[in-house]
Amino acid sequence: MTKKYTETEQEFLDFLAEMEAYNEGIRLMAWDLRTKAPKNSVKQRSKTIGVLSHKVHQMSTSKTMKDFIEALKNETCDPIIHKSILECEKEYNRNAKIPDEEFKEYVMLQTEAESVWEEAREKADFEMFRPYLEKLVDFNIKFANYWGYEKNIYDALLDMYEPGITVEILDNVFPALRNSLTNLIKKVENATYKPDTSKILVPFSKDKQEAFSIEILKEMGYDFNSGRLDETVHPFMININPYDIRVTTRYDENDFRMAVFGTIHEGGHALYEQNLSEDLVGTPLATGTSNGIHESQSLFWETYVARSEAFWNRYFERLKTYAPDSIANLSKEDFYEAVNEVKASFIRIEADEMTYPLHIMIRYELEKGLINREIEVKDLPKLWNDKMEEYLGIRPENDREGVLQDVHWAGGSFGYFPSYALGYMYGAQLRHALNKEFNMNEAIENGELHKIKEWLTRNVHQYGKRKEPLEILHDVTGEGLNPDYLVNYLEEKYQKIYKW
Amino acid sequence: MTKKYTETEQEFLDFLAEMEAYNEGIRLMAWDLRTKAPKNSVKQRSKTIGVLSHKVHQMSTSKTMKDFIEALKNETCDPIIHKSILECEKEYNRNAKIPDEEFKEYVMLQTEAESVWEEAREKADFEMFRPYLEKLVDFNIKFANYWGYEKNIYDALLDMYEPGITVEILDNVFPALRNSLTNLIKKVENATYKPDTSKILVPFSKDKQEAFSIEILKEMGYDFNSGRLDETVHPFMININPYDIRVTTRYDENDFRMAVFGTIHEGGHALYEQNLSEDLVGTPLATGTSNGIHESQSLFWETYVARSEAFWNRYFERLKTYAPDSIANLSKEDFYEAVNEVKASFIRIEADEMTYPLHIMIRYELEKGLINREIEVKDLPKLWNDKMEEYLGIRPENDREGVLQDVHWAGGSFGYFPSYALGYMYGAQLRHALNKEFNMNEAIENGELHKIKEWLTRNVHQYGKRKEPLEILHDVTGEGLNPDYLVNYLEEKYQKIYKW
Repeated sequence: MTKKYTETEQEFLDFLAEMEAYNEGIRLMAWDLRTKAPKNSVKQRSKTIGVLSHKVHQMSTSKTMKDFIEALKNETCDPIIHKSILECEKEYNRNAKIPDEEFKEYVMLQTEAESVWEEAREKADFEMFRPYLEKLVDFNIKFANYWGYEKNIYDALLDMYEPGITVEILDNVFPALRNSLTNLIKKVENATYKPDTSKILVPFSKDKQEAFSIEILKEMGYDFNSGRLDETVHPFMININPYDIRVTTRYDENDFRMAVFGTIHEGGHALYEQNLSEDLVGTPLATGTSNGIHESQSLFWETYVARSEAFWNRYFERLKTYAPDSIANLSKEDFYEAVNEVKASFIRIEADEMTYPLHIMIRYELEKGLINREIEVKDLPKLWNDKMEEYLGIRPENDREGVLQDVHWAGGSFGYFPSYALGYMYGAQLRHALNKEFNMNEAIENGELHKIKEWLTRNVHQYGKRKEPLEILHDVTGEGLNPDYLVNYLEEKYQKIYKW
Repeated sequence: MTKKYTETEQEFLDFLAEMEAYNEGIRLMAWDLRTKAPKNSVKQRSKTIGVLSHKVHQMSTSKTMKDFIEALKNETCDPIIHKSILECEKEYNRNAKIPDEEFKEYVMLQTEAESVWEEAREKADFEMFRPYLEKLVDFNIKFANYWGYEKNIYDALLDMYEPGITVEILDNVFPALRNSLTNLIKKVENATYKPDTSKILVPFSKDKQEAFSIEILKEMGYDFNSGRLDETVHPFMININPYDIRVTTRYDENDFRMAVFGTIHEGGHALYEQNLSEDLVGTPLATGTSNGIHESQSLFWETYVARSEAFWNRYFERLKTYAPDSIANLSKEDFYEAVNEVKASFIRIEADEMTYPLHIMIRYELEKGLINREIEVKDLPKLWNDKMEEYLGIRPENDREGVLQDVHWAGGSFGYFPSYALGYMYGAQLRHALNKEFNMNEAIENGELHKIKEWLTRNVHQYGKRKEPLEILHDVTGEGLNPDYLVNYLEEKYQKIYKW
């Protein structure tokens, strides 16, 4: 059943295949740099990635690409080619609107800023990073104006990561969510009962953590014939090609939660990329549709599946065969509660599921303010700390555990953070929809994780970028973004744990 | 001390950098496919490698390249640019002379032939492979005619792998070498004393073999900050970029020689690539000058260094700290003799240093005959077995251990095999030259392997492709190819071991 394409369609597909070859090179190099590459190779490798990225950028803004868009936009009858053309057009417009010189300057600034940020974070010295961040903000404002927007300039940036989501939508959702979360956190704080984590934060050998993590990845349906698991400082998933979806994790021998939940999180991303429809291979549609929907998949597995009571009802016995005595001697209930401790903390990536969205809101409010020129870069550290105190009741002692903790801004990513919170909310909405079809907890307790994977594949994975984020959400749940499902989930779960 | 280039020179260097980026992508993908890639990724990865290779091929035969050659060939004053232009011109001519259609057909044939060969070897069924081999021979004859030659058509193929070496030179050297080797082998066979290998062919854990191999690589001066060691089915060295020179090895837990000598062999290749002059980076000169000179480096370390008595005088104690008792209890002398056993065998890559060149000569004589249309493909199996019997005194029982054992012909490589024998001879000549400057065995016994590396870097490594193979040989040894040094080395060494 090979499809018949017109000559122009076939030429377009060949052009995409060439771009994709360079992209595959870039991604494999990125994976290699973070896992296996010897230290001295980095400088030359970075140059090479630069050459390949430049080539992809050239092609995506080339006359040839423009001609394909014009020729096929209204001519093609193939729905995948049509949607691919729309994706390419979006990319074309985005890139073509930035003058070449500015783009080059910006790319250089990004690289420099990241390395300055690294040092600044080390030294907890925001002033060192400030001038770079100011320039990055200026560039992003300039670009957003080139790209255009309807209501708020920040929308132009949001659109890169989460098309369809706007300031209007977020401002409608976040304040309510924040209120609910801060209320819940107060209940947790006032609860007299507290889970005891002292018994689970004990030495647990890396090899055994790895063995358990691999078992769970397999249970989830992660295909090791189309992927692999490695160790890195920062865990990630990377789609090198559609049949090569790799994950990494990091091991803390005194806190097994890092690797186990981290691997499951990356595994959730990987299942998305491993289960795209074959039709999409070779087109720009062959990847997750947005950062938010991607996070909805990783968080689905990490929180709604793996932090559930049902999960440990099923898998605690399995964990015991690897775990040290201190963990193995716990009751299932004590263990479940311990891995679900809620505790305000400074570092976003170490936050629990209840406080995490608040970390995101802080960043959202600040970057929206920066891009709207309502906030100045120089005031960020104080504003950050004030918000931490207001939302989480704790105040960072220095900028390393405050405004300097994340790499995103140093890399020029403004508009990215909201996707993390969106992922939580989307995930809770998907969970609700799934439960209408079958009882997820029952499936988990029966060890039928494959049923969950299949449901997600049918409803989300297979479409890749063929559907927009909110289109997926609407098709599956019948509604738009709705934070109530997340709040209800948290309330129900934590009132049981904290017994309020 | 950044060099000043003319505008055209700089444009040429940028063009090379772009080609090199694609090549780096190809090489990393090749490494990954053989070490880490999940099985399902192979098909897509191969397509991607195809796209990148096509791009490199296009660039190397492009109008742009032709213009650079014309503009710079007689104009540039920079010696590295000049030599690079000559290299590019050679490549340009080689590729441009083959009609596009034929090249495509040939590339497809190679891929198909390799996979048929794999199955044919498995089944020891030459007839299955014969039609493909016939076509490959026909193509190579056609190409050789396109490329042209002075005396023998086979020279046109030799020139790809070992420029400067001709049938005339080989036919002047190989028969004498063959006579000397068969005489030596007879002496070995008639010797009443035989080394005893039964004590060294004992279980030796992979981890410990690896630990020892790494120690020796470090002693040799292999830089792990610019490389790494992995395990593969077939060991190899790959120069991913000039600061990323990786080696692989394979472990046989019942024969530690495989990994230890194999790693040292690949380490010898790696030292060549790790010690090129910085000036060459980014040009086509930044690699070993030929297959033969490359083999002279790997074999230098594997045989002249690591199979020497001096080496085990120094390192046997070290090996004992890893080795099982059966080996550790041996005397240094018994151990040294055991790792130097001479024994005629069917498989080239398992041959000892005395019989190895005879394996090469058989292949050389047959492929020279094929390309000169003096031999027909259908007669190969019988001719192969006859020569094995004549030169080595043993006759393969089937084509798997005979004519089908090597992948080279299936990949279309005719003219490649002689480099292996050349490497032995070059190596022996280099050894002789080095010994005039300092006593190599003394250096080895003192653990000063770095002195050897430095000598090789000064005389061979640094030049990359700036010097032709015979130019290097002549500059270092003052003479051309001379097999006497190899013969003398073998005679001196083995009469001591076999006590004739």
